[in-house]
Amino acid sequence: MDIVSDESTESTEAVPGVYLTRGPTGEKASIQRFYIEPGAEVPEHDHPHEQVGTVTSGTLTFVVDGEERAVHAGDTFAIPGGEPHAAVNEGDVPVEGFDVFAPPRPNPDWEE
Amino acid sequence: MDIVSDESTESTEAVPGVYLTRGPTGEKASIQRFYIEPGAEVPEHDHPHEQVGTVTSGTLTFVVDGEERAVHAGDTFAIPGGEPHAAVNEGDVPVEGFDVFAPPRPNPDWEE
Repeated sequence: MDIVSDESTESTEAVPGVYLTRGPTGEKASIQRFYIEPGAEVPEHDHPHEQVGTVTSGTLTFVVDGEERAVHAGDTFAIPGGEPHAAVNEGDVPVEGFDVFAPPRPNPDWEE
Repeated sequence: MDIVSDESTESTEAVPGVYLTRGPTGEKASIQRFYIEPGAEVPEHDHPHEQVGTVTSGTLTFVVDGEERAVHAGDTFAIPGGEPHAAVNEGDVPVEGFDVFAPPRPNPDWEE
């Protein structure tokens, strides 16, 4: 069992206002925490990895095929591999949550 | 993109005091929310699925190979497929968090 302590890890500002903190990388999946400031946006992108996750605070608005999909705190989501998606925090409070990638995504492009 | 609303889903009491709420099932991973009352315990078990997740409230004590491993709120974890593990809430407050299984685990034994 591999545990990554919240206190021991540093976050990366992947794009302005979007902070990602890496968790453990397994053989079949990897996990990261996200923190998105009000108004911050993850530009549309895609990756072959399936993305499954949750929002734990605030509301994150995903944009898929031009359609807005709100994910509220407590909701869970799954994005198929290869599906282009963007996300924006349209609220007044930070959005927090977790993404899991399957297969693992140990070297994401925001670290290149 | 598949979203499961926290308000639309019912939880299952898998073992006494341990409540699980199913999220979406993708092709490579599935996600569930867990809520564990103080004193409640998930007996030792194993499954071929890798298990990756996080604790969002409280502290969950896993037991792996007889060793206690505390996962605090904000920490992330990964348990290899096939590794026997138990978990107990030794605290005074409920433990909340999320598990992701890869490959997906759409029909877990607690629903049989």
